[in-house]
Amino acid sequence: MKKRIAIDMDEVMADTLEALIDRYQNDFNIEIDRTDMEGWHLEDYVDPEHKQEILNYMKQKGFFENLPLIEGAQETIEKLHRDHEVFIVTAATQLPHSMEEKVKWLNKHFPYIGWRNMVMCGDKSIVIADYLIDDHAHNFDGFRGEGILFHSLHNAKETRYKRIHAWTEFEELLNSSLSHSMQA
Amino acid sequence: MKKRIAIDMDEVMADTLEALIDRYQNDFNIEIDRTDMEGWHLEDYVDPEHKQEILNYMKQKGFFENLPLIEGAQETIEKLHRDHEVFIVTAATQLPHSMEEKVKWLNKHFPYIGWRNMVMCGDKSIVIADYLIDDHAHNFDGFRGEGILFHSLHNAKETRYKRIHAWTEFEELLNSSLSHSMQA
Repeated sequence: MKKRIAIDMDEVMADTLEALIDRYQNDFNIEIDRTDMEGWHLEDYVDPEHKQEILNYMKQKGFFENLPLIEGAQETIEKLHRDHEVFIVTAATQLPHSMEEKVKWLNKHFPYIGWRNMVMCGDKSIVIADYLIDDHAHNFDGFRGEGILFHSLHNAKETRYKRIHAWTEFEELLNSSLSHSMQA
Repeated sequence: MKKRIAIDMDEVMADTLEALIDRYQNDFNIEIDRTDMEGWHLEDYVDPEHKQEILNYMKQKGFFENLPLIEGAQETIEKLHRDHEVFIVTAATQLPHSMEEKVKWLNKHFPYIGWRNMVMCGDKSIVIADYLIDDHAHNFDGFRGEGILFHSLHNAKETRYKRIHAWTEFEELLNSSLSHSMQA
């Protein structure tokens, strides 16, 4: 059965956090201990005096266009796209310059998705889909499908939603849910 | 009762067609007879040799940032925003450079809307709302709320949907539908 799957970009497809940590470590010559970062966004974890610097990284031209990939995203999303309806749904209207960069990044790494299935928005409760895979639990507020939390350091302490640690886990979850609904 | 109202931008809030006609008439020294244009998009109505020129206007920097307003849009949408939940939903991912310009245009003319309630997308069936006000009937395919067709020359022959010719008509339609549902 064909499902509509909405997928967030930052920290789900694109490794935004790694890019920020790399940049920060490099600029301030500070080593970030990722095991100590659970429950924190990088900008709130670092010295308060550095917070604005990190937020500024995201405002710089090229930041979103050059993000590295989350492991497994390309392989799994290509499979999902073959059997289901995949929409990319990313909060981007707050940083208007990021939108064109995000489209370029998607066209480069996920060329089969296409502009029809891209959504740049703010409040994701405007979207209707069977699943929303996202690292921010607040995006599940008012969402009418099932929210699947993609593991990230900042959401490590969130317990209200199904959590996946890697893309292969979503394939398993979807297959088991589909075979379940066929038996029912 | 608070409704969620999704509103398209081009030819609904922004007078994209007037901007294109102005530019075309000026560049080619040709007078467009609007009464003859019913059922046509400008790019298909003109000499086929000029079609690409018109499509190129939309690719030029500044085009979407400087569009004139559709009459009554500011007044009515501000009222709607006070009593309901207004989302701007515009097909923009096909022209990635347009997205930042569209946000700037919205911030200038509709500053109370805010980034949370802006959606730049392709296929609008991803959106859930009570109403979608749009000049393109194809955007109502798969839309789960009520599609309200905003009159435009190109859609003049479309008969499947409720049509409004001006923003004040939507206020009337909504008020009558709300008082109807309160009586029921």
